[in-house]
Amino acid sequence: MEYPFSVVAVDVGGTKIACAVVRYENVDAAPIILSKRSIPTDAQQGGEVVLARILDLVDDVRAEALSHGETIVGVGVATAGRVDVDTGNIAFANEIMPGWSGQPLGDALRERFECPSAVLGDVQSHALGEARWGAARGAQTAVVMAPGTGLGGGIICHGKIVRGKHGFAGEIGSTMNTLDAGDGNLESVAAGSGIEARYYAACGVHQTGAEISHRAQLGEDIARQTIENAGRALGLALAGWTNIFDPDIAVVSGSVTKAGPIWRDAMVSAFKERTPGVLADLPIVDASLGDNAPLIGAAENLLDTLKN
Amino acid sequence: MEYPFSVVAVDVGGTKIACAVVRYENVDAAPIILSKRSIPTDAQQGGEVVLARILDLVDDVRAEALSHGETIVGVGVATAGRVDVDTGNIAFANEIMPGWSGQPLGDALRERFECPSAVLGDVQSHALGEARWGAARGAQTAVVMAPGTGLGGGIICHGKIVRGKHGFAGEIGSTMNTLDAGDGNLESVAAGSGIEARYYAACGVHQTGAEISHRAQLGEDIARQTIENAGRALGLALAGWTNIFDPDIAVVSGSVTKAGPIWRDAMVSAFKERTPGVLADLPIVDASLGDNAPLIGAAENLLDTLKN
Repeated sequence: MEYPFSVVAVDVGGTKIACAVVRYENVDAAPIILSKRSIPTDAQQGGEVVLARILDLVDDVRAEALSHGETIVGVGVATAGRVDVDTGNIAFANEIMPGWSGQPLGDALRERFECPSAVLGDVQSHALGEARWGAARGAQTAVVMAPGTGLGGGIICHGKIVRGKHGFAGEIGSTMNTLDAGDGNLESVAAGSGIEARYYAACGVHQTGAEISHRAQLGEDIARQTIENAGRALGLALAGWTNIFDPDIAVVSGSVTKAGPIWRDAMVSAFKERTPGVLADLPIVDASLGDNAPLIGAAENLLDTLKN
Repeated sequence: MEYPFSVVAVDVGGTKIACAVVRYENVDAAPIILSKRSIPTDAQQGGEVVLARILDLVDDVRAEALSHGETIVGVGVATAGRVDVDTGNIAFANEIMPGWSGQPLGDALRERFECPSAVLGDVQSHALGEARWGAARGAQTAVVMAPGTGLGGGIICHGKIVRGKHGFAGEIGSTMNTLDAGDGNLESVAAGSGIEARYYAACGVHQTGAEISHRAQLGEDIARQTIENAGRALGLALAGWTNIFDPDIAVVSGSVTKAGPIWRDAMVSAFKERTPGVLADLPIVDASLGDNAPLIGAAENLLDTLKN
């Protein structure tokens, strides 16, 4: 493809849909985000309505870009839910987006737009964006762990996102919690939802993750223990990944990574306890692209499909 | 490259060095193993002597092939020990090959032969061979677990072997044993050496893994428990891998996989306990290329480097 060219990228989340033109000026330059627009997802209106809103938004952004003379090579979508690898349709979505499960997103994109399109999970898109132009720029092997309300992740091998047969690759939330083995999956201890549930189970008080982090810093025992356990569990999981992948770099992102030094120290020390030799030198860094990571990852995924 | 062409492939193990011409007739045909020769490694003579023996063997096999009109495109090596990804030299080897650690294998190949060469770990070579032409033929995402005396493994993503930054990728033996968490690594329970050590710890009798398997089938309690634990621990690890990778297929190989139905049932049922939904449908198959897998994998790795 000849530079400059652009991809229309979309990031479909439970609360908002973001769409932008991702412009590539030359082979070395980080892509530029242009004409970014966000609309509420209005997920409660159901999957069909959400799908129609996505298509209209893409149409608007694409038409505007074309009118400005942009060369649009395709549409790249990052979306909540699990994406069918072959079709780009939504294989499964949870209750955050009722009726999103089963929506023929990939089919609809191919039908509506004559240009190439590609759909990837949002956390996988985030990981790919960070691996290409963010905190893990240029990494051939990288792992991304994203503990927010839930716990997702992404795996980069040979510089490309690993999707797996059914699109589940990187789903670290459902792996086994090895901190207190047998007691739930990793999400149930290391994600924000898990932190809140475990804190409630320990002291009978509902609190937000942010408040629990705050109380931990102030020295409250139960809060501190809960935050430490969340960090330790993630660090042990990262150690397991590192022993298997030997990555160049690990990227952490998501609200839980803002929990402060108690969380981070617990995560890093658990990682180092279980990681021998040079593997313990793994750089563990924060994501750097913010909200733009899934858009950039969605654009990169579209470009990857064009190369095949 | 124009068909037919050949690669001189070498498999360096602790007891023998095998070398063969791996011949590619056309794009669809499985490669043919020609002129296979084996010599004892004589590892106790030290790394320098082993390196010289490898180079001479390659030279002989290559010269003979050239004299028969073969088109040799390069030399591919599979070797015991951990291989430096950048140089092809031996970063580390254990006591099975004294002095093999640090040997400049990659440098020596480049110096001695004017043709391209590539060096890969033996278990990674085995995995790549099985993924290209064996039990996992055509898989884009695959995991290989090889419980023999030790426990190695290999990961295939995007159809290519994952090596990692330092060449450790696939080293499942050093991952955490989640069967009885905190009690050693996976190798210490799931490999042949672990089976023998745990059996001895439980009843004070030294037995070979094969004999312990036999006693398990006869109904001896301690033997049965030891074999079941080895299977369960590997099955739990496979579940963890599957949750992370969502592979097309898993390949098992190595002496422990011959331990019989007690081992296999324990492995499969532990895997299924921890693996939700469609992921539990993962095909778990035996390796199919036997001793030729590392030779074919070494040849494929050489061809991969030529494509980059």
